[in-house]
Amino acid sequence: MNAPTALSHLVPEINQREVAPALIDALKARFGANCSTALVVREQHGRDESSFEVPPPAAVVFAESTQDVADAVRLASEHSVPVIPFGVGSSLEGHLLAVQGGISIDVSRMNKVLSINAEDLTVTVQPGVTRKQLNEAVKSTGLFFPIDPGADASIGGMSATRASGTNAVRYGTMRENVLGLEVVTASGEIIRTGTRAKKSSAGYDLTRLMVGSEGTLGVITEVTVRLYPLPEAISAAICSFPSIEAAVRTTIQVIQLGVPIARVELIDHNSVRMVNAHSKLGLREEPMLLMEFHGSPTGVKEQAELVQEIASEHGGNAFEWASTPEERTRLWTARHNAYFAAVQSKPGCKVISTDTCVPISRLADCLLDSVKEADESGIPYFLVGHVGDGNFHFGYLLDPNKPEERVVAEKLNHDLVSRALRLEGTCTGEHGVGLHKMDFLVTEAGAGAVEMMRTIKRALDPKNIMNPGKIFSI
Amino acid sequence: MNAPTALSHLVPEINQREVAPALIDALKARFGANCSTALVVREQHGRDESSFEVPPPAAVVFAESTQDVADAVRLASEHSVPVIPFGVGSSLEGHLLAVQGGISIDVSRMNKVLSINAEDLTVTVQPGVTRKQLNEAVKSTGLFFPIDPGADASIGGMSATRASGTNAVRYGTMRENVLGLEVVTASGEIIRTGTRAKKSSAGYDLTRLMVGSEGTLGVITEVTVRLYPLPEAISAAICSFPSIEAAVRTTIQVIQLGVPIARVELIDHNSVRMVNAHSKLGLREEPMLLMEFHGSPTGVKEQAELVQEIASEHGGNAFEWASTPEERTRLWTARHNAYFAAVQSKPGCKVISTDTCVPISRLADCLLDSVKEADESGIPYFLVGHVGDGNFHFGYLLDPNKPEERVVAEKLNHDLVSRALRLEGTCTGEHGVGLHKMDFLVTEAGAGAVEMMRTIKRALDPKNIMNPGKIFSI
Repeated sequence: MNAPTALSHLVPEINQREVAPALIDALKARFGANCSTALVVREQHGRDESSFEVPPPAAVVFAESTQDVADAVRLASEHSVPVIPFGVGSSLEGHLLAVQGGISIDVSRMNKVLSINAEDLTVTVQPGVTRKQLNEAVKSTGLFFPIDPGADASIGGMSATRASGTNAVRYGTMRENVLGLEVVTASGEIIRTGTRAKKSSAGYDLTRLMVGSEGTLGVITEVTVRLYPLPEAISAAICSFPSIEAAVRTTIQVIQLGVPIARVELIDHNSVRMVNAHSKLGLREEPMLLMEFHGSPTGVKEQAELVQEIASEHGGNAFEWASTPEERTRLWTARHNAYFAAVQSKPGCKVISTDTCVPISRLADCLLDSVKEADESGIPYFLVGHVGDGNFHFGYLLDPNKPEERVVAEKLNHDLVSRALRLEGTCTGEHGVGLHKMDFLVTEAGAGAVEMMRTIKRALDPKNIMNPGKIFSI
Repeated sequence: MNAPTALSHLVPEINQREVAPALIDALKARFGANCSTALVVREQHGRDESSFEVPPPAAVVFAESTQDVADAVRLASEHSVPVIPFGVGSSLEGHLLAVQGGISIDVSRMNKVLSINAEDLTVTVQPGVTRKQLNEAVKSTGLFFPIDPGADASIGGMSATRASGTNAVRYGTMRENVLGLEVVTASGEIIRTGTRAKKSSAGYDLTRLMVGSEGTLGVITEVTVRLYPLPEAISAAICSFPSIEAAVRTTIQVIQLGVPIARVELIDHNSVRMVNAHSKLGLREEPMLLMEFHGSPTGVKEQAELVQEIASEHGGNAFEWASTPEERTRLWTARHNAYFAAVQSKPGCKVISTDTCVPISRLADCLLDSVKEADESGIPYFLVGHVGDGNFHFGYLLDPNKPEERVVAEKLNHDLVSRALRLEGTCTGEHGVGLHKMDFLVTEAGAGAVEMMRTIKRALDPKNIMNPGKIFSI
């Protein structure tokens, strides 16, 4: 057991189990060059986009097939050694960190689009396919996959963390859009969940049990997701507001009226400033909503007029339109680059990202008090949000040489989560629990519900080898 | 153990466990007149709308609160006696039958609407609230709850069977519309799953594990569901077709084009005939689609014009419109009464109802071959379907005095399910597995996945008291 680190109050104990040399030998025998123990490879697989750094896995297996995954898991199981699935490494809550040691199974080479069923609006892919790759592959069919968490994440990883992002307000999250899975269980068995039918009442919903289980119940080796017809018309608009409150109150009203808006993103004045500096956009440095409307030409027009009317009532400016695909791409790229723009604004900084989500009527209460607290803290931050879903992210920019900043940022996050839970919301809208929110999960779900999760975990993974130490302590 | 019945090849062994007199005494002491052992009450709680009849429970507890449910479950657990939750008794697959004995917990008196959060589009209800009661309660808010399985089922029961129905093609099923639950577990503990936030990545999706678990993992004592703004415009239309095939092909094209149609129901000529006789509607006795369009006035018009165009290409007649709420109610009531109209068409008959659901592109293949087989069988039947979802129901009308008819009907169902599974569909789109589809579930999901369900069941209900013998043998 390693000594407690400076972060021991924030992350679970690091307690790497011993990895028997016999396992490494067996993996090398089975996988040859596709099993690496090089430090640089292991380190790359032992971190994600979170600010944590802990010891890396003992080996990395590059799986090229479901059978590869099954064999690696079976070998690990024989030696009771943890297994951590790895997609592209874009998770945010320490999911990939080998806190209990073990091996990483990298599925990024399992990146085939297996079957496009355009006439059923479904597609089946290997877990290493990324969302951009998927959309490229289905482009010629006139369909698209809407879930867009910003990063070009893998579909396997997005399933494992129940990801969502900018389009979720209209199209739902991975919870609503995964139809079925192939999964390698803790014993190395291959099972299938779900079918390609749009709905089913056939037994326990294993698909949705696996979606969001963060690799703790199995390794996802195949995913069938829903696709949607590309809307006849798409328009994106920017609207600047005199205050965050005005932007938020506009959003609340839009949602309550049932406007089927496809995207409605809040970008605070800090983010606009950082994005301007990074992407040279010349946007007005005020809080803004970045919106997208999908539908028939008439429908899009109706929606936009209604939203413009609501925005104007709250002091919003006239919409600035981006109607060509190129202009839209430029805007959304800027939005997606907010994180990197922020990091660039304070070279060498570490980012702590929050992820609360509350019922839409509570959004103003939750968000505005937290903005006040963040402003008072003196810590530089940016704020972006999928506000149509009641979900938003503060990014606190920390100087790694000033541990006191981390304490302040964690306090801000703690107060924000407490507020969100009081308002009947959740500590994580889309990033997952990982290492960082285990205590919050207990507060949110209650000890009884978390114990039920633990009971399921123990039953399905009796040796506790599937990404152990994530979601809850076990 | 009872002797095998004539249906032993279709239903699991009836093996009622002994219910200790001490348990009945304890229940009577705790619940007084709210615990009944009268045969007529027990018999009423030991059957549903399926064609099965097996021994009733040993007692019925009428729960009036979550604490009542928890106490009843705890007492049953102490005596290792099964517990079967009961809502309104409208399930279709033998869910309520006391095949292993035990007690029924009737939650129909837990029928309070606990909180309407109109500004968040959510409502929290006790499990005995029915869908019509719920819609009546939220009427003044301008919102509605879309899930409509036909029967005025309880929200608890609809959650437990993952119900859907006519509006699912646009609004999804209980899977998509339940946000959170309160559940009494097998040990009598009360837990909560989910929050009122629209999305969450906080740990295992216990909500969706419970939704569709058919009472085998716990008793649902509170449900939070999503509501939707009443559309600005609603129009319903009937379109008659020269053949079932023409109606089905129209549906497929409508879905593939992404028309956001709210309802698209197939009613075959048999059903129309029965409905005409029952409800005096004077409808043209040909296969028809009964459709509903929701949206802005322009949006509804656009949708309807597009669908009319597609229908005409397939030989469909001009739409007959029902634009007033009264006309719409009359039409949908007729649709919902199709089952009773069918029963009335053959007095004294029993109905076996099928429930396959396939990817939309496979709908014609699956449905037309099954129509041919049904026609050839000589068994009277009707066919209705939520065809926009690829889900449809044959109802075979059996003379209970002719057991050979049952054998023929079961063969028809078996062939239909086999066909649906070959076409990547499911044996049950919305009714659940219950007693009737346990074998089909194994074929559909595979032994490994069913064993995973069983492992979860064993872990969460070690005494196997929660509605045992349903979904899978255990």
